[in-house]
Amino acid sequence: MRPTEVTLVEVGPRDGLQNEAQPVSAAHKIELVHRLQAAGCREIEVTSFVSPKWVPQMADNTEVLAGLARQPGVRYSVLTPNMKGLEAALPTQVHEVVVFGAASEAFSQKNINCSIEESIERFRPVVAAAHAAGLKVRAAISCALGCPYQGEVSPDEVERVVLLMKAIGVDHCGVADTIGVGTPRKVQAALERALKHYPLAEVSGHFHDTYGQALANILASLELGVHVFDTSIAGLGGCPYAKGATGNVATEDVVYMLQGMGIATGHDLDALVDAGAYISEVLGRPSASRAGKALLTRRQRVATAAGAAA
Amino acid sequence: MRPTEVTLVEVGPRDGLQNEAQPVSAAHKIELVHRLQAAGCREIEVTSFVSPKWVPQMADNTEVLAGLARQPGVRYSVLTPNMKGLEAALPTQVHEVVVFGAASEAFSQKNINCSIEESIERFRPVVAAAHAAGLKVRAAISCALGCPYQGEVSPDEVERVVLLMKAIGVDHCGVADTIGVGTPRKVQAALERALKHYPLAEVSGHFHDTYGQALANILASLELGVHVFDTSIAGLGGCPYAKGATGNVATEDVVYMLQGMGIATGHDLDALVDAGAYISEVLGRPSASRAGKALLTRRQRVATAAGAAA
Repeated sequence: MRPTEVTLVEVGPRDGLQNEAQPVSAAHKIELVHRLQAAGCREIEVTSFVSPKWVPQMADNTEVLAGLARQPGVRYSVLTPNMKGLEAALPTQVHEVVVFGAASEAFSQKNINCSIEESIERFRPVVAAAHAAGLKVRAAISCALGCPYQGEVSPDEVERVVLLMKAIGVDHCGVADTIGVGTPRKVQAALERALKHYPLAEVSGHFHDTYGQALANILASLELGVHVFDTSIAGLGGCPYAKGATGNVATEDVVYMLQGMGIATGHDLDALVDAGAYISEVLGRPSASRAGKALLTRRQRVATAAGAAA
Repeated sequence: MRPTEVTLVEVGPRDGLQNEAQPVSAAHKIELVHRLQAAGCREIEVTSFVSPKWVPQMADNTEVLAGLARQPGVRYSVLTPNMKGLEAALPTQVHEVVVFGAASEAFSQKNINCSIEESIERFRPVVAAAHAAGLKVRAAISCALGCPYQGEVSPDEVERVVLLMKAIGVDHCGVADTIGVGTPRKVQAALERALKHYPLAEVSGHFHDTYGQALANILASLELGVHVFDTSIAGLGGCPYAKGATGNVATEDVVYMLQGMGIATGHDLDALVDAGAYISEVLGRPSASRAGKALLTRRQRVATAAGAAA
């Protein structure tokens, strides 16, 4: 049942950097994407088309996309939560757009002041326009494993959003543990609801590592045959030193596990570790990837030993 | 197949503190053990009986054991790598002693300058004397998933040590990923070799989180029915800020996962988080437990909200 190949969607440049306190220049973002695609990332979520009033970190979206030396075979995606965002994104020639809705009614009300149903209905014209332009539409179901306001979120609540996303024509359904509280069986229960309505290749997992559970949750997802996951280079999306860090699972940690299990991802782990070290240096802080840090340390030790022997 | 109950052996006071750079006083160690047993730890590896020349951090072994207010139902164990250590440990009234041998010939030669077979043969009188005194003997097979000198370690090499341990009468066999390089399938392959020669209840996993793989490896072990694991409060055993940190998997992270899966461990997670915060403060550094940090942050947020509402 376990897949032999896994597709990782690299969300570091978007979901990662959007949630870092420190601003990063467009030039550094472009360099990061270049390093990621050189390291074998084949799907990259590059930026967001949202109001710069709300997300100033992504105000340089068109600049970043225009500056990319695109690599054949790599799919680039962007977040477009409304028609204005989609219209701005269309000329930039991306392959996919991403919309998102919460599985928690409390979260929806608190954050966007409307019901889940209303929030998803607003994406209907976005999905239609994206399809008309030949773009694939991915949805992220946020708070699918828990909510900071209501606490537990049930599989029924997840399935309700899955059905709403399907009703507006979304092509791919991501189950997102936004606050990282999920554990393996609960993750399986949530994914099973998405799998009732979407084919295996169109269901993905998006796990934050806040409680250290992300790799275990990916392993549990593999057991269901799920083989698409969002990951973030260097665990971008929450400083490891900040209280309540809520970073995404680190790409390096996931690739290390999958390669160790004989599951192909297409990545060059050494090059990924370099890309993680690069963006960590730009941010002026250590990587949140345990495998990334361990592999860098091992490499330095080998270099020191070689130097001593020379 | 998955167990409904799991036994965690708390190794923070021994394997954890032994590998921390900073010395901790006997009084702080005693307080830590008291907090751990109050939080539901039922098996605690307290200290080592090794030469203080080699491990000065454990030179206070008899002082710590003498200072414990022992709790009925809690089993206390100590590391006794030779007869001198065992003889010193016997009057302290522990329940179990621990010996260890590497699965890697290169590691054995480099570290103790003898073959694996010789190293384990030396434990024969220790095991006999421990049994004569009514103590259970656990063995840890170190470097079972990889070695800093030889790299890969095969399941055959693990099985060889399992058989040597069995031959000298060891009661329980722990498969230890000392440098944290293991991934789920490799962990299962190593455990399966131990399970060929020891019953399910007498095989355990000991995973370091150096590459972030420990929880996934525990999940993979549960699939085999393995239900005993070593864990370390606050991930003691490697400062999270040091290069090449090699801490044990954090007890809090494991308990969070198991409780989320409906698997009983007997722990009070809140009290564990407090015990982890206590020893982290003693060491003057943040906890290496992600769940520990996240739960503390959540608690502070709730307290702040309650204060604002009052």
